[in-house]
Amino acid sequence: MSSAGDSLQRLQELGELVISAIKRGEFPKLEMPDRSTNNIVFNKEKNQFVLGPSQICRDSSNTRHVRSFSQLLWVASFAKTLLESGRTSSLRDLYYSSEAYGVHFKDQAESDRVVSDLECVVGLAREDLGIFPEERSSIFGQVTMRYTVAGYEGREIDLTMSPDGFPIGPALVTAEPVATDAELILAVESGGMFSRLIETGAWRRFGAVLVQLGGQPPRSTRRLVRRLHEALNLPVYIFTDGDPWGMHIAQVMISGSANAAHVDGLTVPTAKWIGVTPADIRKYSLPTEPMSDADLKRLDELARDPRYANPESQRHISEFRELRRKAEQQAFSRFGIDFVVEEYLPDKILDPPDAKRVTKQ
Amino acid sequence: MSSAGDSLQRLQELGELVISAIKRGEFPKLEMPDRSTNNIVFNKEKNQFVLGPSQICRDSSNTRHVRSFSQLLWVASFAKTLLESGRTSSLRDLYYSSEAYGVHFKDQAESDRVVSDLECVVGLAREDLGIFPEERSSIFGQVTMRYTVAGYEGREIDLTMSPDGFPIGPALVTAEPVATDAELILAVESGGMFSRLIETGAWRRFGAVLVQLGGQPPRSTRRLVRRLHEALNLPVYIFTDGDPWGMHIAQVMISGSANAAHVDGLTVPTAKWIGVTPADIRKYSLPTEPMSDADLKRLDELARDPRYANPESQRHISEFRELRRKAEQQAFSRFGIDFVVEEYLPDKILDPPDAKRVTKQ
Repeated sequence: MSSAGDSLQRLQELGELVISAIKRGEFPKLEMPDRSTNNIVFNKEKNQFVLGPSQICRDSSNTRHVRSFSQLLWVASFAKTLLESGRTSSLRDLYYSSEAYGVHFKDQAESDRVVSDLECVVGLAREDLGIFPEERSSIFGQVTMRYTVAGYEGREIDLTMSPDGFPIGPALVTAEPVATDAELILAVESGGMFSRLIETGAWRRFGAVLVQLGGQPPRSTRRLVRRLHEALNLPVYIFTDGDPWGMHIAQVMISGSANAAHVDGLTVPTAKWIGVTPADIRKYSLPTEPMSDADLKRLDELARDPRYANPESQRHISEFRELRRKAEQQAFSRFGIDFVVEEYLPDKILDPPDAKRVTKQ
Repeated sequence: MSSAGDSLQRLQELGELVISAIKRGEFPKLEMPDRSTNNIVFNKEKNQFVLGPSQICRDSSNTRHVRSFSQLLWVASFAKTLLESGRTSSLRDLYYSSEAYGVHFKDQAESDRVVSDLECVVGLAREDLGIFPEERSSIFGQVTMRYTVAGYEGREIDLTMSPDGFPIGPALVTAEPVATDAELILAVESGGMFSRLIETGAWRRFGAVLVQLGGQPPRSTRRLVRRLHEALNLPVYIFTDGDPWGMHIAQVMISGSANAAHVDGLTVPTAKWIGVTPADIRKYSLPTEPMSDADLKRLDELARDPRYANPESQRHISEFRELRRKAEQQAFSRFGIDFVVEEYLPDKILDPPDAKRVTKQ
């Protein structure tokens, strides 16, 4: 996470680059990494997508570039205003705010793209620039965070204080992890599972910081998980539905996505998907539904995806293909509402049969 | 809100009714209000939908009723287990849990329906029975709540402690409002607006408890708003997008829905929709989009809906029909990101030109 001061400095440098060109009587140009598909490469060592060496140039002397060039500068100046005033903006608000300045975006997809351009140019994530999506997932556990947002600077909060959890919004994403009594981070897909793990006291038993993902989580949730993992040295486990979509929620947390190949600090390469695996579905005779054509097609895509080019992932995929059925994480409730806490999770986290326990390093 | 003890007693009475019939050598029967469309009537005095006098009977001597009769008793016994152990369940978990007991539901829609049946039979809302949906909206403001959930009994929380707000989950829905320094409740549709009102300190300026609805809010959010309104004597304002869907979010909070005609304690008849009204769109020259066919069709439906049978609502509808355009609440950002806080909301809440201020009674 970059501090507001560092972010402001990067924006200032960008502005100076443009102004000095103008003062020299030149048309300003901006170089940035190329985010098009053919420059997104899979880095095997990092086990994640990164951008290749290709650069593109926004040249204000080219009339075809003038529009995107000025949009980019406006987003940079909007971000500067946000950071200077300690405010944040949603991507949607940013889109609407442009009208006040006579800057035109065709739709929000276009302004979102220009926000990504700015991320590339200044080498920061949009969250560092005060720009956040609307979606929120939640967190709960034995972690103390120190806020940095205006009005709350230096105030600390214990993330067990609210038994419904805390939304992962701008304040928590920019807060500093201060201390923890937890042993691990357990990210779960559904809100029902999140509530269950809180009210059964499972968080205490497993020493778990619980994160509710709610499907593919927003980038800010992935950033917070990564920061807690690094700052507090907590291993990360991911528990999702047993289907290709659930597997992929975990895989994106582990090795990132092509869309965010230009952003650092989102992945946890040592995170572990603990299920629901196809082997779990068989072992526990879970209630299942047949896979749809879309599910099977998705499995084919994952089989070819470089992020799944490891024996364990390929085994899961071929077992899913054989099974042709899927199960939600709630399916364990068939054995009673506490089964998942009493039996399944201890097997997976405390005493995994097929893997060494991921321990605090 | 019914206490867990009261709820348990109602469930117990239901069980005794069934057992005593069996002991008398009779097939047990259960009477409940009829929830079918022709028994949902609009009560003009209450300005909301209620159930008419028609009753239906689940008769276990009728083989066509045996399935729904036993499903109902199973849901009742599941709820009893939840209440006795201080647990909650999502509607989805309840559906999956049925398998553990050999009780069969065709799909979750069927188990959701049986939960509604049980609400009718015992005259309680599902939240009183420990059963919650997955969705969460958020709350933030100068209110102190005292938790009643297991592990947190008696602990108090100040709802300004988390600058990202608090999720309205099982713990907060069952907590007791203890004290407030607030003057009013301001419910807003979007998460972006919710964040804006927190970080600009608008909550302090307007003395507002902020509630983020996120579209049509879950019933538990409406319950919490109603309880804060009653217990703390706070008037309620609702701020949504300027389109028929936004109007209807407000109207359901004001006068309820046909789906929940059998549940009390969800509506705030004196709540006020403050916009974005079609008049606001004109007055502030907001950026708009043309209404789709679905939007226009929805306006026709609302025009015929008894909940809109008042001059003010009809005026909004006919102005929307003339305008044929809609605006999101973020559209005010065209005048700068603080315009909504500096200009629009003071006009609407502190000094409404076209209506008396709703004051604390």
